Amino acid sequence: MSAMSATPKKSLKLFSGTNHPELAEEVAKQLDVTVTPQAAYQFANGEIFVRYDESVRGCDAFVIQSHSSPLNDAIMEQLIMVDALKRASAKRITAVVPFYGYARQDKKHKGREPISARLMADLFKTAGADRIMTVDLHTDQIQGFFDGPVDHLMAQKMLASYVSETYADEKITVVSPDSGRVRVAEKWADDLGGTPLAFIHKTRDPSKPNQVVANRVVGDVEGRVCILVDDMIDTGGTITKATEQLLESGAKAVIIAATHAVLSGPAVERLENSGAKEVVLTNTLPIPDEMQFSNLRVLSIAPLVAEAIHQVFEDGSVTSLFNGQA
Amino acid sequence: MSAMSATPKKSLKLFSGTNHPELAEEVAKQLDVTVTPQAAYQFANGEIFVRYDESVRGCDAFVIQSHSSPLNDAIMEQLIMVDALKRASAKRITAVVPFYGYARQDKKHKGREPISARLMADLFKTAGADRIMTVDLHTDQIQGFFDGPVDHLMAQKMLASYVSETYADEKITVVSPDSGRVRVAEKWADDLGGTPLAFIHKTRDPSKPNQVVANRVVGDVEGRVCILVDDMIDTGGTITKATEQLLESGAKAVIIAATHAVLSGPAVERLENSGAKEVVLTNTLPIPDEMQFSNLRVLSIAPLVAEAIHQVFEDGSVTSLFNGQA
Amino acid sequence: MSAMSATPKKSLKLFSGTNHPELAEEVAKQLDVTVTPQAAYQFANGEIFVRYDESVRGCDAFVIQSHSSPLNDAIMEQLIMVDALKRASAKRITAVVPFYGYARQDKKHKGREPISARLMADLFKTAGADRIMTVDLHTDQIQGFFDGPVDHLMAQKMLASYVSETYADEKITVVSPDSGRVRVAEKWADDLGGTPLAFIHKTRDPSKPNQVVANRVVGDVEGRVCILVDDMIDTGGTITKATEQLLESGAKAVIIAATHAVLSGPAVERLENSGAKEVVLTNTLPIPDEMQFSNLRVLSIAPLVAEAIHQVFEDGSVTSLFNGQA
Amino acid sequence: MSAMSATPKKSLKLFSGTNHPELAEEVAKQLDVTVTPQAAYQFANGEIFVRYDESVRGCDAFVIQSHSSPLNDAIMEQLIMVDALKRASAKRITAVVPFYGYARQDKKHKGREPISARLMADLFKTAGADRIMTVDLHTDQIQGFFDGPVDHLMAQKMLASYVSETYADEKITVVSPDSGRVRVAEKWADDLGGTPLAFIHKTRDPSKPNQVVANRVVGDVEGRVCILVDDMIDTGGTITKATEQLLESGAKAVIIAATHAVLSGPAVERLENSGAKEVVLTNTLPIPDEMQFSNLRVLSIAPLVAEAIHQVFEDGSVTSLFNGQA
Amino acid sequence: MSAMSATPKKSLKLFSGTNHPELAEEVAKQLDVTVTPQAAYQFANGEIFVRYDESVRGCDAFVIQSHSSPLNDAIMEQLIMVDALKRASAKRITAVVPFYGYARQDKKHKGREPISARLMADLFKTAGADRIMTVDLHTDQIQGFFDGPVDHLMAQKMLASYVSETYADEKITVVSPDSGRVRVAEKWADDLGGTPLAFIHKTRDPSKPNQVVANRVVGDVEGRVCILVDDMIDTGGTITKATEQLLESGAKAVIIAATHAVLSGPAVERLENSGAKEVVLTNTLPIPDEMQFSNLRVLSIAPLVAEAIHQVFEDGSVTSLFNGQA
Amino acid sequence: MSAMSATPKKSLKLFSGTNHPELAEEVAKQLDVTVTPQAAYQFANGEIFVRYDESVRGCDAFVIQSHSSPLNDAIMEQLIMVDALKRASAKRITAVVPFYGYARQDKKHKGREPISARLMADLFKTAGADRIMTVDLHTDQIQGFFDGPVDHLMAQKMLASYVSETYADEKITVVSPDSGRVRVAEKWADDLGGTPLAFIHKTRDPSKPNQVVANRVVGDVEGRVCILVDDMIDTGGTITKATEQLLESGAKAVIIAATHAVLSGPAVERLENSGAKEVVLTNTLPIPDEMQFSNLRVLSIAPLVAEAIHQVFEDGSVTSLFNGQA
Repeated sequence: MSAMSATPKKSLKLFSGTNHPELAEEVAKQLDVTVTPQAAYQFANGEIFVRYDESVRGCDAFVIQSHSSPLNDAIMEQLIMVDALKRASAKRITAVVPFYGYARQDKKHKGREPISARLMADLFKTAGADRIMTVDLHTDQIQGFFDGPVDHLMAQKMLASYVSETYADEKITVVSPDSGRVRVAEKWADDLGGTPLAFIHKTRDPSKPNQVVANRVVGDVEGRVCILVDDMIDTGGTITKATEQLLESGAKAVIIAATHAVLSGPAVERLENSGAKEVVLTNTLPIPDEMQFSNLRVLSIAPLVAEAIHQVFEDGSVTSLFNGQA
Repeated sequence: MSAMSATPKKSLKLFSGTNHPELAEEVAKQLDVTVTPQAAYQFANGEIFVRYDESVRGCDAFVIQSHSSPLNDAIMEQLIMVDALKRASAKRITAVVPFYGYARQDKKHKGREPISARLMADLFKTAGADRIMTVDLHTDQIQGFFDGPVDHLMAQKMLASYVSETYADEKITVVSPDSGRVRVAEKWADDLGGTPLAFIHKTRDPSKPNQVVANRVVGDVEGRVCILVDDMIDTGGTITKATEQLLESGAKAVIIAATHAVLSGPAVERLENSGAKEVVLTNTLPIPDEMQFSNLRVLSIAPLVAEAIHQVFEDGSVTSLFNGQA
Repeated sequence: MSAMSATPKKSLKLFSGTNHPELAEEVAKQLDVTVTPQAAYQFANGEIFVRYDESVRGCDAFVIQSHSSPLNDAIMEQLIMVDALKRASAKRITAVVPFYGYARQDKKHKGREPISARLMADLFKTAGADRIMTVDLHTDQIQGFFDGPVDHLMAQKMLASYVSETYADEKITVVSPDSGRVRVAEKWADDLGGTPLAFIHKTRDPSKPNQVVANRVVGDVEGRVCILVDDMIDTGGTITKATEQLLESGAKAVIIAATHAVLSGPAVERLENSGAKEVVLTNTLPIPDEMQFSNLRVLSIAPLVAEAIHQVFEDGSVTSLFNGQA
Repeated sequence: MSAMSATPKKSLKLFSGTNHPELAEEVAKQLDVTVTPQAAYQFANGEIFVRYDESVRGCDAFVIQSHSSPLNDAIMEQLIMVDALKRASAKRITAVVPFYGYARQDKKHKGREPISARLMADLFKTAGADRIMTVDLHTDQIQGFFDGPVDHLMAQKMLASYVSETYADEKITVVSPDSGRVRVAEKWADDLGGTPLAFIHKTRDPSKPNQVVANRVVGDVEGRVCILVDDMIDTGGTITKATEQLLESGAKAVIIAATHAVLSGPAVERLENSGAKEVVLTNTLPIPDEMQFSNLRVLSIAPLVAEAIHQVFEDGSVTSLFNGQA
Repeated sequence: MSAMSATPKKSLKLFSGTNHPELAEEVAKQLDVTVTPQAAYQFANGEIFVRYDESVRGCDAFVIQSHSSPLNDAIMEQLIMVDALKRASAKRITAVVPFYGYARQDKKHKGREPISARLMADLFKTAGADRIMTVDLHTDQIQGFFDGPVDHLMAQKMLASYVSETYADEKITVVSPDSGRVRVAEKWADDLGGTPLAFIHKTRDPSKPNQVVANRVVGDVEGRVCILVDDMIDTGGTITKATEQLLESGAKAVIIAATHAVLSGPAVERLENSGAKEVVLTNTLPIPDEMQFSNLRVLSIAPLVAEAIHQVFEDGSVTSLFNGQA
Repeated sequence: MSAMSATPKKSLKLFSGTNHPELAEEVAKQLDVTVTPQAAYQFANGEIFVRYDESVRGCDAFVIQSHSSPLNDAIMEQLIMVDALKRASAKRITAVVPFYGYARQDKKHKGREPISARLMADLFKTAGADRIMTVDLHTDQIQGFFDGPVDHLMAQKMLASYVSETYADEKITVVSPDSGRVRVAEKWADDLGGTPLAFIHKTRDPSKPNQVVANRVVGDVEGRVCILVDDMIDTGGTITKATEQLLESGAKAVIIAATHAVLSGPAVERLENSGAKEVVLTNTLPIPDEMQFSNLRVLSIAPLVAEAIHQVFEDGSVTSLFNGQA
């Protein structure tokens, strides 16, 4: 007989970029594995280098990297990690990006702009990623930017459960901070048992996303606890202006809830002084100690990511974690 | 000297699928060209055949096809037309799809669904399309599904101008028929000079897009002329229920405005009997005589498409037609 | 130790398009599996939707679809099914197309035609199909259109066995209905033990494949039972004219044998009245009750397809089912 | 103004592999250009090297190479020439292959065979060829193996004209040497004004294409001048056995006509002694002096190739050279 | 007549990343164009945004970006600029990278490393770059990492001319600082008229490229002016240790000459205090005022880049600028 | 339950091209498998054919072919073998090329040259190779030419061990025959315990790699045993001239050590008469009996290749065979 036969086994390995090792460690602990040891550093001129300290041949690799600041370094490091895995004969490579960088540039707002969110998907494909796992994309359509499976995890249930339990006795209105996310607020309203909806009618200069002109509140908020929901908080301008307007419009209290704590520039100061009763975020991005503030509440995404990785490895269902939503 | 030299010239050729020849003819007339003659028919078993009657070598080809019913035949015909052009050495091929089929399936609503809008983009790329030109995509992100230039034309200005002139003396509120299109309504409100906004808070079963559960109206509509805006009207269920609710909520009148007249199933009957004062649509899709109804107003998209094709051919700017919006 | 280990298992899942569920059910029964349950329907405007009701992650997926009428819907549905499987992390996807649509457009007959059979192969590749399984391609070269493995099943042995047993005592001549399929007839002659060959010398207008001008019979048919063989019967024009000519030329009887029962337009009426003693076909395409006729004999392709799927899943040999022929 | 403008010009350059420089020179002469000078040689270990002596940037490159013996060297040289052109910024590259190597392996005859004709198409694509120009493919379907335009030239008209003029007064039967090329013979019969057809019913071992078992002649040949047609003559076994059989069957004379003079092994001796009155071939492959024989007649393909190249360069029609046939 | 005809014109446009605008301006001045105006900035969280202020449709785009610190931002900005050009229908896109980042990671030194230089080439291809123009690659083989034309400019002639003129009366030895660049030193020796060669025999830990263990000098340096040549100076460790060793070994003087002034970390201090008589570099990378030092001499690469861009635009020869070297 | 389940098994199969069957047999023996039986021959016109005699479905295929003379036939045969495996559903295909043809053309030396080493990598990818395994590449950067894993085996340790043991008592200098391979010599010096280094300063006409102008010896060789190292010996001109120069410069003895025995043209005669004490080579290329000479010593590469294949199959580490070097 001409062939050599063997029974294959499969092995899951976890890899971590250098931007948010705490999250990777937490995920590893949940999965009862250790993060694969590696040499990873940046040369003096900024070039990133990585080498794995043990064989990765044939493994089912999950490469976790938070696209936090310095963002382009984070992305490039992950691309290079994927390239190294591809060339080292990993069997399958999943790029785990709890926060997907450049998600907001998911379309051309004006002529001659890039579609950077698509570009990122293509870069990961080119580097060798077979799959992407991510949390609460800025728009669901980004799933379609990647030519392959995308496991789209949702933190909303977790956030909504927390809000629902903490503010069980209040009359709640779910509020979208702008016209573009009313659909998301609607899903929150469903999760919270059919509350009313409102949104802020405003103008945003499409060429400079951080400059916002807030207008009137549309919907019923007077005397109610407003849950102001968004996918991410970047500089916090939009969300804190909305908070002010809701309070001015007679809201009893404002709770800010969002998945991604980008928290750049003046965000922390703004949130702390916004008048919001509580700001509920997750740790898809690292929140260093100096950025913690009094009314901040951080929920960990690690159990969700770990469970999803486990399902992927075992050929189970990821959407079953979200009642079939994708 | 070893080479033969020549001065190149470039030539624009227009091709038309069989689904909406009137639009292609109108575009051709605007451009002062004729539609390239071809043999195109369907065999008894449903296979589509096409052959061009004159040389297309080196031309800048624009292939117009409306993705109207029978929709899959329309798409397949256009793919086959593009394939024939590729193999016949056309220099550049632009698929002109005034209405982009499967645009609504632009994400997975639940697990194990396709992302058909991305699939369509890939199919056109595979067949040989270098570029896509389309009108009012269901979501702007679909631009990013195609790996190449997408010229995204907008009928909204044209529709808004008509409404603005016709109802110049009325107090207007722009209304989104659901939570997902409030942003689009906001742009209408800007175009109409800063009118108030409203939307219908409802639940839509994500697995069966045509079944809608409408709820309360959010925003101020009483005594006002409501402009109910959408990208397309398919069976008309959502939009006519919204019309009824607006009238019940005290609206003075309802004007329905949308770009794509899909008008399938009971749409015509529903629209005619909806109580809407006027239904303003464009001819991105053919509206046969038997589907015309009393309160229907159709604006032609042909001048816009023709101008865009002309700009593309002449290396001019398409977005300049829309004040830089893309 | 850093990794999580597990022993992989592999699982075969069968999926069925909506065009010919009976065949899929029959194949499933042979394999002792059930067709994977799914939601699949067509929206009012013709767009097709599909969603699988259970996890397909990691499975070895076989997607059966007959390219029967409405043909373009059938192909698009299968492409969309493949896309959904790709995005849902199926491990390997085989498109099973018992009848391969557009197989006849496998070359340019004149300038500026498409090569639709190649286009179909590329579309399946783009959607995510890793492999194709098909039966009796119009020309063997179509195997080379797909960039990957093609399992080419042959119904001829099955058909020839039936003919051989049923007409054991007759003097047989195998006849090709035109000059392009004499080689296939030659293989039949071999299978039937070295019978004589004949063919119809005719002219076929290459631009309109269904219009045939029959001429004289070349070869010895007088007093013999003629087995008139073809890969498919579409409108039946060619084959019934050939039948008439053979009878006029003194054939004792004519038996028509073909794999694919396209049977479009006037085919049934023509076949029934052709004078042929028997018409032997397979069920690669559905033959609804109203298309059954008196002298029709249908052999089931399901055992062959099931056995091939089983071999593919178990890494056995498919060509061994055909004495090594591919 | 920010840009530098210029009027482009286009220039045609002709490149020649080392296998059949006479043909390239003849084509160049017809086009009134010179073959682009180059350094091209083979190192002692068989590696091929090429470098162009003048700039090729921006040119419309036509790379002529006959796939004659040593065949794999010829193909590899052409691939390397195309690679060099791609990297040197040629604008468009057409691989001109008067005889397409490996055309006969256009399908799997048995399991676990390559489809080498498709592989060759992919290799040329990978190297950087945008287009292929070739003459009388073994099967027309090979056009579909290349993902791009294929200009398929036909020598048959030229050959048929010669035969028609030379044997104007004879009663002619066109004969296919085997069952697989009866369709081609039918086209000849059309070109010669509707002559009768015949073919040799034989068995060919599919795994060893050169071993042939000839059987009876099917069709009417007695007392007639038989034109025995094929696309190529390789070892000449099939065609000379057919010649003998035709003469034994009472043919008045046999004329052999084929496009490609592969003429390997014993071909020349066989043809010379076959009893054929004349053997008419073209120079798509080089026929060195020592392979010339008394009853050989060679027609030059150069005018046809030159005219096609000219049409391609000038964006004219190639199929117009063949009454629209492709 | 069905087509619209026009005479094409071609236009060159220059685009500049934000890392080294001075070089782009200098190149623009040489070409007598202006850099295309654009909006380009970085959001607070590190995401880069770019939009061109005028139409780029149909232009021949040259995008200049120096891969200087912050290096990953520089690369990502250039990728995004290319993506925007692709989607805005630029006709051809050349990424001009005077210094090619990650060039040193051009192979795996140990197992499980990336090949980042190849990855960069693939990222540029994916983003939409048709061509790459670069200066003095770390190894020539990197040309082969890009699937398309690479214009490889060489600063060595310019540097050698300067050295040759400045030290015309000295006895010169060309010295390679390590064993890997002796071939480059050999080319310098040729350019300087056949001087002797030497190199430093040392050990370099392949996993940490900046840690060097220098050993003895191999070759004749005593009493001679040593030209110590390299492609880039990063932290300056290798080159300054080599300088010391040469001086210890009796060199009369040491001149350091290199193309790329990476100059990270302690480089400036080291070079200033190295004992080298002169350090000759180019401005492929920006050298801010605070990094200038007394014995530094900077030659401008702009005329070379401008001339090469001009040749590319005009379909001239780039290698003719370097006596045919590539 | 809808699915059929099974436990997968994996099987290694070895395939051998016809150029160096002895090596494949030796590797097979080491692995305790047999080379998979196949039909493989060349038609009279040079076309290569291959068919495997047993099912290869699902196997882990290793296709060994030495790129020895006739080199282009060898490469084409291996491409065709890979194509056949791909189409026959092999699970993974590794092209094992002990000597990688065209490795020396790894860059453009002058303008308008190909980069044939990259082209070969692309051709293997296109044919269907998932991985490449090779020995001592001409330059390490060639690893980066292939878009996938490359297992790069190193014969140097084996050669150095032999030299180290055989010449244990000698004072050794390692010598590079030209300026381009001093780095490789440096590695040898490390392996031999820190010996001195030397190289030959010469001029090589880049356009004609086999014409060499040798110059002075740089480094200390007098009275020492010189180990003259190279990756391959082709015509032997460089290496034998270097030998003469070393002996003229007072070397006590010269030992030539290289991995690849290309040995074309006058190589054997030159080596035999070079004055070298011993020539140590490996059998990555076949060395037929008539090319053996008195002072030749051949070490077998088979154990190394076999061990590497075994590691790949078992998901072990290949680089561990080389102390982590890649």
